[in-house]
Amino acid sequence: MQLRIPGPTPCPPEVLQASAKQMVNHRGVEFKDLMFRTTENLKKIYQTNNDLLVLTCSGTGGLEAAIVNFLSPGDKVLSVSIGVFGERFADIARTYGVEVIPLKFEYGQAADPDKVKKALQDNPDVKAVMVTHNETSTGTTNDIVALNKVIKEFDKLILVDSISGMASLDIPVDKLGLDVVIGGSQKGWMIPPGLSFASVSEKAWKANEVARIPRFYMDLAKAKKFLVNGETPWTPAVGIFFGLDAALELMLKEGLPDIFARHIAIGQFVRNEVKKRGLEILPDDQHASNTVTAVKAGDKIDAPKLQKILREEYQVVLAGGQKDLKGKIFRIGHMGYVSEKDMKEVFEAMDKALPQAAK
Amino acid sequence: MQLRIPGPTPCPPEVLQASAKQMVNHRGVEFKDLMFRTTENLKKIYQTNNDLLVLTCSGTGGLEAAIVNFLSPGDKVLSVSIGVFGERFADIARTYGVEVIPLKFEYGQAADPDKVKKALQDNPDVKAVMVTHNETSTGTTNDIVALNKVIKEFDKLILVDSISGMASLDIPVDKLGLDVVIGGSQKGWMIPPGLSFASVSEKAWKANEVARIPRFYMDLAKAKKFLVNGETPWTPAVGIFFGLDAALELMLKEGLPDIFARHIAIGQFVRNEVKKRGLEILPDDQHASNTVTAVKAGDKIDAPKLQKILREEYQVVLAGGQKDLKGKIFRIGHMGYVSEKDMKEVFEAMDKALPQAAK
Repeated sequence: MQLRIPGPTPCPPEVLQASAKQMVNHRGVEFKDLMFRTTENLKKIYQTNNDLLVLTCSGTGGLEAAIVNFLSPGDKVLSVSIGVFGERFADIARTYGVEVIPLKFEYGQAADPDKVKKALQDNPDVKAVMVTHNETSTGTTNDIVALNKVIKEFDKLILVDSISGMASLDIPVDKLGLDVVIGGSQKGWMIPPGLSFASVSEKAWKANEVARIPRFYMDLAKAKKFLVNGETPWTPAVGIFFGLDAALELMLKEGLPDIFARHIAIGQFVRNEVKKRGLEILPDDQHASNTVTAVKAGDKIDAPKLQKILREEYQVVLAGGQKDLKGKIFRIGHMGYVSEKDMKEVFEAMDKALPQAAK
Repeated sequence: MQLRIPGPTPCPPEVLQASAKQMVNHRGVEFKDLMFRTTENLKKIYQTNNDLLVLTCSGTGGLEAAIVNFLSPGDKVLSVSIGVFGERFADIARTYGVEVIPLKFEYGQAADPDKVKKALQDNPDVKAVMVTHNETSTGTTNDIVALNKVIKEFDKLILVDSISGMASLDIPVDKLGLDVVIGGSQKGWMIPPGLSFASVSEKAWKANEVARIPRFYMDLAKAKKFLVNGETPWTPAVGIFFGLDAALELMLKEGLPDIFARHIAIGQFVRNEVKKRGLEILPDDQHASNTVTAVKAGDKIDAPKLQKILREEYQVVLAGGQKDLKGKIFRIGHMGYVSEKDMKEVFEAMDKALPQAAK
């Protein structure tokens, strides 16, 4: 089986084995050690000395934490959205009474730093900027360095969804000075879904002190307090933590530069192979994601049919389009536990399936 | 290792093996089948035909869902609390602007139905009653049948924390007409932490329609909508679902009557063994829990020292007291994957450790 959707991603055998270890006391010595070690290792991947908190929830829970811990009802935020997950991030903010200034870009386009700058000039009372690092729904990566440079001209909190970016793409949190950055376990981390990660800057903690959106389960200040003793406020997903520990060991053994280089090479390989077959990528080359490729179905391919044939006859699982992109694209995930060989197998299967899925 | 805390509890090998299966698409056919099957089987354990939703979070997240989905800021609720987890449930409600009428009972006592009745008579504008079925912190089980009978005399929503009760103790949701009942995976279910369960009655859904506390990640109405297609709104903890599926199969094979009888017998066995050693149980016999036993340390035993010796020298892990009960009790968990033989081993170790832990 080639599970090549943008999460959950396949897990290495070491991770699956670790996930199957017998339970331990989540308030005991063994877990404390594990908690300290995984937190330190997570920080290495995040390239940060900021606090790094782990929540037992999926990525959307992490995005919720990024809102409810740092904002108050009535606060104004600029939502820079380039797809479904950018919109979800904005929806969460709206749900909690935050006033969202939407800055939406067409599906398949990256955010334009100049337009972000203009929006911030036009809305000086904006407290925070919400940005998607890598938009899973369109296979598009924002130029976080360029966006960050613009945002830094203003004194705003930067809240980043890097769920499908972090651990695969280079996003140096401290170097850029990103305030809150959210990750999710089932992406480049190579572990099962159920954990979300949040890095929190000093500036974000300052905002936390006055933030008044109510929060309980997702309370990051409480998580920080418990982390001092190697604990979490509520019972953590112990089994997934075991997997995380094993995955972090594998990742640090490979090393960040090699992880990033591998994703860049595979991303390029996938785009080349797609183009060789006369197909088009949704975003332009400059912003095409190295963790997920969105391929236009055009008027020649029945995308849902292609996915069905690939799955049923060739054990290759790809993802479709979401919302407005339903039926218009199919997506190939290539993050985390993935090699060029895996992708070759995907394209071998695709060569057999494509003629059957022609419109 | 005998992990005998009141959760996480040990997992059977079948469950651990299942948890280590390779990931699948959470929006694909395999997961859909799994989702439908586990939901139906969960309903059997809950003894309910109500909707049964699964959230990726720990029990506290489930308790939060029981509040935010059914109440509005300013609503009045009666909080019947007999320990730390009853207080946590009330704290969650307060956090979200609910006016809590606290009805607290001394640690180690069960809730008195007459006092609940009086509180409801005195507060006719109460919208919901929050009750803990089995209070993990004091090893006390409320007489949910008697409490429910009283509450049913009034037209209130009944929100029940049965995290450490459900799947071990008999709590027939439909027969009693309980509106929202929360369970947690790391207890009697014999699986790792990371999933929480909520049954929701028609009456609770009616309340949901007008409930105005903001919610996103914990939105049960959205979970219900996605369940129609065998999905969850956000990526679920797929690995823990695999474990849940295996555990439910084991549980239904044993059968509910036998599961309940086993917990009753082991609870009785543990209390007898405790008493044989001249030690006292915190609650009275009638309300002593059959999933967790709280033993008074008295002035003869250094409870933290006892736990340390048991853990380090005999590989038996017990729990201490929480908050006001810290140092005053120790707790023996006996829920889920547990036999009388396991408990015999615990007491054999205790016989060796007790003299060393004398004050």
